[in-house]
Amino acid sequence: MNCILLPKSDMTLPDAQINDAAQITHINNVLKLQVGDTLKIGQLGGNLGTAVISSMSSDSIKLSGVQLDIAAPPKLDVTVVLALPRPKVLRRLIMDMTVLGVRDIVLINSYRTQKSYWQSPMLARLEAFVLEGLQQGVDTVAPQIQLRKRFKPFVEDELLSLMKPDAIVAHPYSEMSLTQYSQQNAISQASTAKAVLPSVVFIGSEGGWIDYEIELLAAQGCQAVHMGSRILRTEAAVNVLLGHWLLHQ
Amino acid sequence: MNCILLPKSDMTLPDAQINDAAQITHINNVLKLQVGDTLKIGQLGGNLGTAVISSMSSDSIKLSGVQLDIAAPPKLDVTVVLALPRPKVLRRLIMDMTVLGVRDIVLINSYRTQKSYWQSPMLARLEAFVLEGLQQGVDTVAPQIQLRKRFKPFVEDELLSLMKPDAIVAHPYSEMSLTQYSQQNAISQASTAKAVLPSVVFIGSEGGWIDYEIELLAAQGCQAVHMGSRILRTEAAVNVLLGHWLLHQ
Repeated sequence: MNCILLPKSDMTLPDAQINDAAQITHINNVLKLQVGDTLKIGQLGGNLGTAVISSMSSDSIKLSGVQLDIAAPPKLDVTVVLALPRPKVLRRLIMDMTVLGVRDIVLINSYRTQKSYWQSPMLARLEAFVLEGLQQGVDTVAPQIQLRKRFKPFVEDELLSLMKPDAIVAHPYSEMSLTQYSQQNAISQASTAKAVLPSVVFIGSEGGWIDYEIELLAAQGCQAVHMGSRILRTEAAVNVLLGHWLLHQ
Repeated sequence: MNCILLPKSDMTLPDAQINDAAQITHINNVLKLQVGDTLKIGQLGGNLGTAVISSMSSDSIKLSGVQLDIAAPPKLDVTVVLALPRPKVLRRLIMDMTVLGVRDIVLINSYRTQKSYWQSPMLARLEAFVLEGLQQGVDTVAPQIQLRKRFKPFVEDELLSLMKPDAIVAHPYSEMSLTQYSQQNAISQASTAKAVLPSVVFIGSEGGWIDYEIELLAAQGCQAVHMGSRILRTEAAVNVLLGHWLLHQ
């Protein structure tokens, strides 16, 4: 946790109270803070700032002098459509996308998504993974997450309204590279290029997309791009792909 | 596994034999291949190519018609110096760095590395993690991994000889951004910029580097860079940072 996020309901400015067990443990055992120390905090959905610890007990920490004067960093203006991954990696993927500042996430079914993944209890914990990501990434604004259990209706009926105007799908066996795509869409700025983030990015999970899925996407104008001959794990692909734009903001 | 890698000793061209249990399970249960099917293979340290399955038993798969005519992809010409992370994430970090094609890896002690990490049995399994990474990333050439249990002697006595000529350290609290650093070092190419990979990249683990470590590195000419206000997990930082150059190769 690089900041402690609190819901507005736990704040009565300039005071606030921490009731969450994980946050209290972190303050005690990792940050090793005491009464009088200053803490980096944020209001969920609001600003970032600092507070001073005024009292500590085993089940709550009271804060005073709360100052919330730093705006949350801008979101990546993108919808990531992610093939629902194994439950084990779902937490890290949601965390990483949150850390990177993705604005919208759609978890979608794909041919290679196992049906059992949709029954995973991890799907009930998305909000907790987002909170972890916000506190790691020092942000306060949660991404919007939607679930879509059917691929074809999403692509045919919903995708077009999200494309403003473009979409890409990460696919190691495509002919165009991400670099070529970025250069096509680059806005020249002196000797450097500022990449334009497509409004929608599809990322597969283990085993990627099948040809039928790539064809359905192509029919809607979604461009398949590869990232070189190296085939990345889903988590690595998410970070390489989205990090590419993070570094070009 | 996006290819099956075999040691030279298991090949008698144009035949070869798979004895590894994990590879046999993958061919049976994930790829679902049968006698007569073609398989993507590679020779450890050598070329990539294909082979045909000529017979299958529970403990070995025989291959014929082995063709190894595709060169392994180029390595990223970089030494990544990684603060030894929690054993739990070590496997994924070694895998990811291997997938991204890092040529040299140094696992180093840092102030925030817990002493117990150096006793982890995971450190004896680095070769297996590298093999996983090579088979994921479709590469045959393993990165060289070295362990350094003392930070200061490495920085003062060994670092300079690895810098050809530059080094960076990922540090969220530095003044220079990675983008600024890349632009300073960019080779102009029409309207786009080709980033130059520093020869050495230091990446911290949980909690990052302390000021003393950053100062020791700076004294040797190693530039601290941040990647924006967002603070990434170690795995995400590795992929964002190194993926940045992967996409600019």
